[in-house]
Amino acid sequence: MDDGMSPFAARVGQLRSSTLRDLVAAASASDTQHVLSLAGGLPPAQALPVDALHAAVERVLAAGGDALQYCPTEGVGDLLDLIAADLQTRLGIPEPRGRMVITAGSQQALDLIGKVLLDPGDVAVVEHPGYVGALRAFAAYQPRFVGVPVDDGGIDTAQLAEMLDAGLRPKLCYLVPNFSNPSGATLCAQRRVHLAELSARHGFLVVEDDPYGQLRFTGEALPPIATIGGQVAYLGSFSKVIAPGLRVGYAVVPNWLVRPLVVAKQAADLNSSTFAQRLVAEILKDQAFINAHVAMLVDLYRERAQALLAAVERVLRGRLRARVPVGGMFSWASIEARGVDAIALCRAAMTRGVALVPGNEFTVDGGFPADVRLSFAMLDPDEITEAVTRVGAALDDLAVR
Amino acid sequence: MDDGMSPFAARVGQLRSSTLRDLVAAASASDTQHVLSLAGGLPPAQALPVDALHAAVERVLAAGGDALQYCPTEGVGDLLDLIAADLQTRLGIPEPRGRMVITAGSQQALDLIGKVLLDPGDVAVVEHPGYVGALRAFAAYQPRFVGVPVDDGGIDTAQLAEMLDAGLRPKLCYLVPNFSNPSGATLCAQRRVHLAELSARHGFLVVEDDPYGQLRFTGEALPPIATIGGQVAYLGSFSKVIAPGLRVGYAVVPNWLVRPLVVAKQAADLNSSTFAQRLVAEILKDQAFINAHVAMLVDLYRERAQALLAAVERVLRGRLRARVPVGGMFSWASIEARGVDAIALCRAAMTRGVALVPGNEFTVDGGFPADVRLSFAMLDPDEITEAVTRVGAALDDLAVR
Repeated sequence: MDDGMSPFAARVGQLRSSTLRDLVAAASASDTQHVLSLAGGLPPAQALPVDALHAAVERVLAAGGDALQYCPTEGVGDLLDLIAADLQTRLGIPEPRGRMVITAGSQQALDLIGKVLLDPGDVAVVEHPGYVGALRAFAAYQPRFVGVPVDDGGIDTAQLAEMLDAGLRPKLCYLVPNFSNPSGATLCAQRRVHLAELSARHGFLVVEDDPYGQLRFTGEALPPIATIGGQVAYLGSFSKVIAPGLRVGYAVVPNWLVRPLVVAKQAADLNSSTFAQRLVAEILKDQAFINAHVAMLVDLYRERAQALLAAVERVLRGRLRARVPVGGMFSWASIEARGVDAIALCRAAMTRGVALVPGNEFTVDGGFPADVRLSFAMLDPDEITEAVTRVGAALDDLAVR
Repeated sequence: MDDGMSPFAARVGQLRSSTLRDLVAAASASDTQHVLSLAGGLPPAQALPVDALHAAVERVLAAGGDALQYCPTEGVGDLLDLIAADLQTRLGIPEPRGRMVITAGSQQALDLIGKVLLDPGDVAVVEHPGYVGALRAFAAYQPRFVGVPVDDGGIDTAQLAEMLDAGLRPKLCYLVPNFSNPSGATLCAQRRVHLAELSARHGFLVVEDDPYGQLRFTGEALPPIATIGGQVAYLGSFSKVIAPGLRVGYAVVPNWLVRPLVVAKQAADLNSSTFAQRLVAEILKDQAFINAHVAMLVDLYRERAQALLAAVERVLRGRLRARVPVGGMFSWASIEARGVDAIALCRAAMTRGVALVPGNEFTVDGGFPADVRLSFAMLDPDEITEAVTRVGAALDDLAVR
């Protein structure tokens, strides 16, 4: 039956996560030393609110079995109310309540938006480098990906404007505006306005994926594109501020997209876990708790980001330059040591017991031969310093060869 | 941007759930009397193991925050082990462990299988009438649906064989072999063997969806097609034996389908809720509990099925004939009263305070103008008797007009 598989099956079967997989396999094999991971974007154990979740379970189950039933496809009403109120007051997103769908993390929102909007050959504009999960989700619908470069101010909307003027007609433009994965860059204020204008003028959907927005280390939050103009789907997630294992996220979409998205969600899994949704609602109801929890997370990740940047500056100066993120979990680093390839560095680092991810993992068609993504989320400051020291040793190893 | 929507978006936007929706709206409006539902396939409150789930939470969270993290896309290892052992010993499914993916209910398995296998125009064979959730899941991938009639012995494999001999080349054949939704029919032993043979000979995938299999009222379980031969994806779910609100199901697929399915699952939502998976694993570990719980469910639904059949025989004899199911949640009923249309009956029943679903909801292109689906899951025996009495009054109302 192999020849009975659709082009999709053949294609997804080939999708690279091979480098990452090799690295993980190498990590498991090298049990002689503890592997320090600068690779993943997972919350560390102390970021997970186990006690609050436990208390939420008590309250939810005290009400009986309702939380164990099916629920409306768009989500549990209480949770939708709480999220909508927060988005309106904290971010100024206009009238979100009737335009929302709860999804299994924002990953599912990406899949469903791709399913509803993308036909084979349609253009999907993405950050270059961009979030690999979005590339995978959209790839299933066989779009033509067009990468637009990212610098310290986020995706370069001037370059996008040139492409649009030259006739590019995208269905959507996907980006992570705050502390992007993998670039660590934040879209500056002018570009937010520019992107909203481009969306309004050229009629494409901006998919504004904001899982890290609350994890800002310094400065004022910039307005979401969804508050400025254009056609915008704003995606949020509780994976980074509560727990990824609940798989609860959401999408706030333009009115015309609500019904197709709900129908696609119903076909995909009927509804997201009622139980998980009610737990998130219980946690959000306690505003004092969630505010304190987010503040704790910001302190935690800020300290780790500072440890990473300080160690890179001290140990790797002139050999590796890391972008300074103002929030989130990632920095993007460029290799300055001459003739050193990112994949070779990642391999050498793995033999030294450090995992990091080469830049070409974050593109559809390669590129970034001399860049790596550094995540500072999972290690404490001392471990980060040790990891960076080992990266330095790996660079030494490569220089010797 | 409406004209920027893909054919899919336009299509799914039109998908009928209109009759059901109208009925529910009517039910909400008619607050003068309590509506008795023979419509839904939901477990009643007493079927939900709230205390066992509560105890499972205690054990899972005592181990710390692991259950709140991401997990492998194919699922939590402990849960995969437990399900595989059960499928092997209870059902004789060969070597399931390496061929499994945990999904958000079996609904997500349908969506992912459709995504991987179906290209526009591919033939999908379905039961006629068939499970509406499967029709919706596959419809997103624009197959050509071919319905094969269902009788008391399930889908008519002789008719399918004729179609295959005449040149039909399906990619898949979807069915619910035990106590099907909506027909209540169970595929007989000979047809199971026949379908496995047809799959082997003609190279299509049998999608054997078995959410109700453990809810057998009487007689010996028949062997799953997955134990007989052919290319079979066996789908299971904990929605009916534990709780739908957890959204945990699974697929056991042929080896060639494993990797495409995992990649599609990763693109769709990374992984199903780790927390929900660990809770299910905790409950399954207590074999004595789960066996007693399933036995309780069987007694519960058997008593309700008997109440329904007895009331139909007593109150509606000569006007409505209901199929006798040997398990599950549904009976399929044919209107014998002359000139009475199923939709008219459902409307008249709703004004009498009973919800049931007309047969044409369970097809792609209509049909079954004189059939309705009766679910006996949600009402107790007295309520069922009252509901059937009201259906009789509704038939009287229609006769008077």
